[in-house]
Amino acid sequence: MAETIFAKIIRGEVPCHRVHEDSHVLAFLDVHPLSRGHTLVIPKEHAATLDALSDESAAAIGRILPRICRAVMRVTGAKAYNVLQNNGVGAHQAVFHVHFHIIPKFEAGEGLGIVWAGRPLGTSGAELAAEIIASMG
Amino acid sequence: MAETIFAKIIRGEVPCHRVHEDSHVLAFLDVHPLSRGHTLVIPKEHAATLDALSDESAAAIGRILPRICRAVMRVTGAKAYNVLQNNGVGAHQAVFHVHFHIIPKFEAGEGLGIVWAGRPLGTSGAELAAEIIASMG
Repeated sequence: MAETIFAKIIRGEVPCHRVHEDSHVLAFLDVHPLSRGHTLVIPKEHAATLDALSDESAAAIGRILPRICRAVMRVTGAKAYNVLQNNGVGAHQAVFHVHFHIIPKFEAGEGLGIVWAGRPLGTSGAELAAEIIASMG
Repeated sequence: MAETIFAKIIRGEVPCHRVHEDSHVLAFLDVHPLSRGHTLVIPKEHAATLDALSDESAAAIGRILPRICRAVMRVTGAKAYNVLQNNGVGAHQAVFHVHFHIIPKFEAGEGLGIVWAGRPLGTSGAELAAEIIASMG
């Protein structure tokens, strides 16, 4: 598995502007932010994508997210924000170590740009849900 | 606090295509998907935004996310996906009950559209990180 910049940050070999650290999780400012306060929350466990992460690390990230979001919103004064976690090149992932972005959204537009093109689920929903349930084991 | 469609779904008053349920979390297909397999993961606890959610509910969602992602990817065959959680009207939130979107991204482009306009963090990072740390208490 390829070494990533985040592995080096976790080991302290590359510096970061850290905002939180515990036994499972590290959070620090994105060095190329979409908006003021753009923060990354990563597991110390190495996993390239969320589906490969252990339940324990995933729970630890989930547990700390609200607290970090509150602090980022307080400090930046943003009234809205997006939490985004990308998996795979096609989904805009650039560093192959799981990371959750917390991205404040400001009224001037600074923040994450989203293009939303939904369409009705139609009649296939019941069958699709059944397939997913079966696949969850 | 205003009643939402998700509260009615949790109580079973409005139907959904459920893919997972436990004591803290419900997951079901989005009825207006961005792509095949677009799934919503919500806490049973009512909180409008992630910053208002309890640690316990947030941890429970975090813990189950990898498992649901694996099942959705297996069934849809998608090679990439985004996990997105929006907070506030300005950040594209439409239902004011916390929800994480799992959105498969297909090579044809179907899925979440992202507009990314980052810029260097510059020299303000250390001060900003210190403010966030102080605000986390």
